[in-house]
Amino acid sequence: MRARKIILKNYFDGKPNLNNFELVEESILETLEDREILLKAVWLSVDPYMRAFGNRMNVGDTILGSQIAQVVKSRHPGFPEGNKVIAFVGWRDMTICNPDKLKGLFRGVFPMPDLQGLPDSYALGVCGLTGLAAYFGLLKICQPKSGETVVISSAAGGTGSVAGQIAKIKGCKVIGFAGSEEKVRWLLDLGFDQSFNYKEINVDHTLKKWAVEGVNCYFDNVGGDLTFWVLQNTNESGRVALCGAISSYNDDPKTAKVQFDYTSMIYKQIKMEGFLVNRWFPEWGPAIGELIGWVKDGRVKSRETVVEGFESLPQAFIDIFEGKNVGKMIVAV
Amino acid sequence: MRARKIILKNYFDGKPNLNNFELVEESILETLEDREILLKAVWLSVDPYMRAFGNRMNVGDTILGSQIAQVVKSRHPGFPEGNKVIAFVGWRDMTICNPDKLKGLFRGVFPMPDLQGLPDSYALGVCGLTGLAAYFGLLKICQPKSGETVVISSAAGGTGSVAGQIAKIKGCKVIGFAGSEEKVRWLLDLGFDQSFNYKEINVDHTLKKWAVEGVNCYFDNVGGDLTFWVLQNTNESGRVALCGAISSYNDDPKTAKVQFDYTSMIYKQIKMEGFLVNRWFPEWGPAIGELIGWVKDGRVKSRETVVEGFESLPQAFIDIFEGKNVGKMIVAV
Repeated sequence: MRARKIILKNYFDGKPNLNNFELVEESILETLEDREILLKAVWLSVDPYMRAFGNRMNVGDTILGSQIAQVVKSRHPGFPEGNKVIAFVGWRDMTICNPDKLKGLFRGVFPMPDLQGLPDSYALGVCGLTGLAAYFGLLKICQPKSGETVVISSAAGGTGSVAGQIAKIKGCKVIGFAGSEEKVRWLLDLGFDQSFNYKEINVDHTLKKWAVEGVNCYFDNVGGDLTFWVLQNTNESGRVALCGAISSYNDDPKTAKVQFDYTSMIYKQIKMEGFLVNRWFPEWGPAIGELIGWVKDGRVKSRETVVEGFESLPQAFIDIFEGKNVGKMIVAV
Repeated sequence: MRARKIILKNYFDGKPNLNNFELVEESILETLEDREILLKAVWLSVDPYMRAFGNRMNVGDTILGSQIAQVVKSRHPGFPEGNKVIAFVGWRDMTICNPDKLKGLFRGVFPMPDLQGLPDSYALGVCGLTGLAAYFGLLKICQPKSGETVVISSAAGGTGSVAGQIAKIKGCKVIGFAGSEEKVRWLLDLGFDQSFNYKEINVDHTLKKWAVEGVNCYFDNVGGDLTFWVLQNTNESGRVALCGAISSYNDDPKTAKVQFDYTSMIYKQIKMEGFLVNRWFPEWGPAIGELIGWVKDGRVKSRETVVEGFESLPQAFIDIFEGKNVGKMIVAV
């Protein structure tokens, strides 16, 4: 049987481009060993973190990533034929693996959660890692209290849009920064109190005008100078959840320089913490349940940017860094 | 009666210089109102934070600061004549104040703690705010565990030297960075496992060689590029206590750029938190008691750089930014 995978052809250097990737065809055996399963990808997740992990991959490695896949053949009783799974097997269309042996960060095969009728693709987005990042980063690190002001950067992305909606559920005033007029309008539709196109405004003046009582929580997907200006407008005891830093992923960290507001950090006693959702793995189940509930009752709305075709993965990934996605970026095989 | 005070003559711009300060003589009444006291400064504390607070002072304001003073006259039953106090009244030699009305951040008059025979000046240093910053920053934010590796920047300063010694008491491996060979030798005398002159070495290579298992805790007084390289060598779940950022106090924060390691912050789930010791005010008493105990039994050693004369305050302050102090910088009146 033929399988396709996309490998790292050249190390990332600056923004990702098509030359970083190569689509490779290979033959895989259809005769499974005991406890092996054959997976067919249905939806693949496309996320900025793959750029940051570029330096952990070697040339020739399959690009990291998760997918919703169907179990086509199975010799594992935990994964019957016909079932769908969430599989961290990288950018592959057909995959043979033994789930018992696929362990570690960004590896593994998991049963689909019961989405209670929501679309399967939501298990990658609002009811998957994307939503969990919003849920835990906001609730565990920012710990927003009702009436506080929460700022979200890259607010129209899959994670930011969910984080802002959860902050609204918790009774906060929510201000989002995004990169286009369409995104800004969508955030207002979602119930954000204010949203701004960061390319068109002065972040400092905007926050001084619209967050007159100061910022209490910042859910950050961007880093860099945007974060500097948010910190300048953050209150005593502010909390910053670092979910991503898309503004810096394409720089060489050993030479790139940014504004960083140590003075605010110290004299306003601000806490800043980076996180990965695997930290709260034991709590994923109840969190997914709560996210599903919010989506079903309309309090959290999800939007996906869907690109067709396995071979489109590299371009979809490149497009993220151009801000072309609204909501969660996924590829349909 | 004549009193002297030192005021902000010109706003700080870059490194402090003598032109930022003016010594002013004034007359003060010797007839006290009810509940007023007359204080005579004995020791004055000189700290880098005064630079960071420069933008909260106006030209003409007395420079912020604390002192050990003697109560020369008193109409307040809580502060009898002859007693010594810790007074946050700024850079003044003779001061009339009503302690009941002097409240707020960096304001107030407090009874001297019982130093159990230790020198009075220690109430500004190892058994005062300096020691408390080390104590709470390290124990509350870094939360070092026995066997972990702790890095201290500006390690031969008043706070850094105490933080390192407390980390040793807690069973940690302690690595200090300081700015001269004399300081490096002193840190080794104090029991630091390793210490280095950051001007002479490559921080990245040094940590890769001497912190082979990675850094768990970082007590930071410096910020900037030094902090970047420590973060590069920090482990998963590392904790950074931001006590100061002396490398940035003399820069314009709105234009200065530094390296900042968002990628390490996120993917190693590092927590960074700024702090002021007033946060733990209810716990100061027991903490001072513990510090006094450690000093008396020799587990924490204190060193002071003493400069003579009230009029020497500006130069002593300038000298801090040249790294001329070893241990706590104080001025004797």
